[in-house]
Amino acid sequence: MSKEDKETKREEKARQKAELKALREKLMGQQQEIRAKGLPIIVLVEGWATAGKGSLINELISELDPRFYNVTTHRIDPEAESRYPFLYPYARAIPENGKIMIYDAGWMEDCVRKLMRREITKDEYKNRVRAVNEFERQLRDGGYLILKLFLDIDQDEQRKRIRAFRENFETEWRVSADDLWQHREYKLFRETYEAFMDKTGKLIPWHVLDGGKKTASACEALCLLTDMIDKALEKGRYVGKPFEEDFPLRKMPKLAAVDLSPALTDEEYREQLKKLQKRLGELHNVIYRKKIPVILCYEGWDAAGKGGNIRRIARPLDPRGFDVKPIASPEPHELARQYLWRFWTRLPRTGHICIFDRTWYGRVMVERLEGFCSEDDWKRAYNEINEFERQLTDWGAVVLKFWIHIDQDTQLARFNDRQNTPEKQWKLTEEDWRNREKWPQYEEAIDEMLQKTSTENAPWFIIESNDKKYARIKTLNIVIDALEKAIEARLA
Amino acid sequence: MSKEDKETKREEKARQKAELKALREKLMGQQQEIRAKGLPIIVLVEGWATAGKGSLINELISELDPRFYNVTTHRIDPEAESRYPFLYPYARAIPENGKIMIYDAGWMEDCVRKLMRREITKDEYKNRVRAVNEFERQLRDGGYLILKLFLDIDQDEQRKRIRAFRENFETEWRVSADDLWQHREYKLFRETYEAFMDKTGKLIPWHVLDGGKKTASACEALCLLTDMIDKALEKGRYVGKPFEEDFPLRKMPKLAAVDLSPALTDEEYREQLKKLQKRLGELHNVIYRKKIPVILCYEGWDAAGKGGNIRRIARPLDPRGFDVKPIASPEPHELARQYLWRFWTRLPRTGHICIFDRTWYGRVMVERLEGFCSEDDWKRAYNEINEFERQLTDWGAVVLKFWIHIDQDTQLARFNDRQNTPEKQWKLTEEDWRNREKWPQYEEAIDEMLQKTSTENAPWFIIESNDKKYARIKTLNIVIDALEKAIEARLA
Repeated sequence: MSKEDKETKREEKARQKAELKALREKLMGQQQEIRAKGLPIIVLVEGWATAGKGSLINELISELDPRFYNVTTHRIDPEAESRYPFLYPYARAIPENGKIMIYDAGWMEDCVRKLMRREITKDEYKNRVRAVNEFERQLRDGGYLILKLFLDIDQDEQRKRIRAFRENFETEWRVSADDLWQHREYKLFRETYEAFMDKTGKLIPWHVLDGGKKTASACEALCLLTDMIDKALEKGRYVGKPFEEDFPLRKMPKLAAVDLSPALTDEEYREQLKKLQKRLGELHNVIYRKKIPVILCYEGWDAAGKGGNIRRIARPLDPRGFDVKPIASPEPHELARQYLWRFWTRLPRTGHICIFDRTWYGRVMVERLEGFCSEDDWKRAYNEINEFERQLTDWGAVVLKFWIHIDQDTQLARFNDRQNTPEKQWKLTEEDWRNREKWPQYEEAIDEMLQKTSTENAPWFIIESNDKKYARIKTLNIVIDALEKAIEARLA
Repeated sequence: MSKEDKETKREEKARQKAELKALREKLMGQQQEIRAKGLPIIVLVEGWATAGKGSLINELISELDPRFYNVTTHRIDPEAESRYPFLYPYARAIPENGKIMIYDAGWMEDCVRKLMRREITKDEYKNRVRAVNEFERQLRDGGYLILKLFLDIDQDEQRKRIRAFRENFETEWRVSADDLWQHREYKLFRETYEAFMDKTGKLIPWHVLDGGKKTASACEALCLLTDMIDKALEKGRYVGKPFEEDFPLRKMPKLAAVDLSPALTDEEYREQLKKLQKRLGELHNVIYRKKIPVILCYEGWDAAGKGGNIRRIARPLDPRGFDVKPIASPEPHELARQYLWRFWTRLPRTGHICIFDRTWYGRVMVERLEGFCSEDDWKRAYNEINEFERQLTDWGAVVLKFWIHIDQDTQLARFNDRQNTPEKQWKLTEEDWRNREKWPQYEEAIDEMLQKTSTENAPWFIIESNDKKYARIKTLNIVIDALEKAIEARLA
């Protein structure tokens, strides 16, 4: 290299360092406004083994206030089969409003490696790619900024780096058997990475950075990030528009058309209850061993008998293998994240039964009617919820949804009974009376919900509960049928 | 059996069933008051394999409102060495105020099995027993009700049950290799269980129930539980009295006596910073491989330079292996639990570095001075914190605590600078000015904290930060020294 060339190179390097410094300061300057406006930001850093993801992330965060960002690393564990849906660790880690979450590799690496290892079939891979697109869109529509980076190096560069790491005792451990395997299969990996980016880059684009140029790629990443933030600060928080996708739906009757007269005698009830609970207990054993996750969703009118119904299901279950998750109004740290977050974080492990006492459908009922979210928000939710539930059933879960139904007269009688019975008074609140006044609006919302979200994979069941005994037996029968089918499907 | 005997037995059974029903109803009746008074309740169910822990728990919860209780199961994983302190899963699961948490086996089984397997030494076992006593006392002193049950069966009964399970294809899986091993080593297990109960039953007694008598033991458990609740509802929430235990303490100077003049030139700073950061980066590699957890605690005056100091430590670290946890005022779900809960849940995995930007010492500073807790609460905290930190260092963690120190003049100068510099204004709040007015009270509290909690295993370091450069270099040096020592100790 001539003296002049060296001089130019030195100048170029100094220029880049200055640019990097300026960009970092820009990001630092943006921190306060991001916090004030409550913008949540996701930076996904994917790329080749040894491409320098760690250093890139370090460059991004080095001047940031630690209260402002977090880094999450998801190690793919090839031995232990995951006990949760594949998006679970990423959904759990989404940032709260006003913060940045940096994913040190994430759903891309997860999908690509699993496919390459043949741990998932091509169909499962396709489902995962679809789920990734849904996940990203839902976050974007919920006001999240998402920056997706891929750090690229060619095979020669990777070889050099692997060698350099392995020559040094102190850094040798950084190259895993997995990384060596990737290096040997470099070509196939490149094809798969590119295909993945192709399939997931339409809505939220991928940015490929040159991993060989450390400072330049840090500058580019910071440039993209600060630009994205600038635009969002100018335009304000994005709210996605509703749209409808085709899901195979079951035809549901209007609530007004439901015959609420079915009832059981005490004797019929006792006899069937005993038999069905015994059967459910047996099935729970099988579910547990076959690692089938089960999600039972309860919604219903106040005083319809949700609690008693849930207890009859829970009674024969081994407490080690099930959980009831009561859903109250969201806490501040839950409100500060996309609305499905508090359900993602409550999902059961495989083989466990989770009973949700109220669910994510609050979005299209109470939140809709009380104005706790915008019209776009709840209208979008039908589709988002269908997607979410499809991700659960793709994972292998049995998802059943129960609307515990009574008529207005029955509710009034039960309210009065609660009011007049000291031990039951706590069950009745002012809010229950207020909700009762909005019965027609609720009925309209519930009818719409039942029409739009009773998918083949995660159907709704209307449970006639004017007679609680009938309601409990009907629910038990539905659960038992569904579990038997799921077990059969696993055996096939 | 004669006809009369049969008759007596039937009557006895009916009587027990009626008693069980009455007790369950009593507990149901207590629910509301427990909730209203915000009493948190822990029920620990330990016992022999096949003794019927699951059924007992089912009897306890069968009529309860699912919003009111939870069951947590901690499976002991003999293969995977835990990445957290052994109490971590139990501390994480403590209930919030007004709820019951039922532990389906817990810290007893964990301690006893680990000892029996020789996965921990006798000394480690002793430390764990001590930690269990500390953990239970801290919860009790924080107002938790704790009921500890042990389900007992003799070796013959266990043999029968294991056989019965194994004869049936559907239930065969319930008997693990571990259970068979326990059965073979029944005698040794009995001795160890009894010794454990002996060592941990003084403060909060153990209740041994006869696992052979299902209904009777459920009655007894419910009796104990409802009695305990009755008493607590009558007396009100318990607040533990402070007491002091001997910890080996380092002598700390009073803040007023600290010489704040040390300073570095820009050149000295740059040179040392580069060298020390390089070294810290190398050590981070080793820490990671040797799975040593590191916990760095930052406290200090407003504007003392905590943020900049933390960034200089974080700069050379691989973002995959460290985390900064900023501690703000507690959220509602955190306030509803024992005060150390929000720190237990933020502990790093082994091999990771966790930097706490403010810590559990808020209890004896801001919470003390602003009256956010009672005098007994903060006075008890010195001892509780020393115990907590000893549990961390017993686990193998390096725990270092930094008080970033400046004088009042320097703080005023920095406040004024922040006020006059638009980009820095956000760093200065009304609260900072208010806190400044309370400097003398804070100084007294801090002096007391430094005297009482600078233990040999988790020492405090006063970092003179009138010159921020000096402060950063001093902190880096302390961290490097401590990590080198910890690595050496592992090699020895």
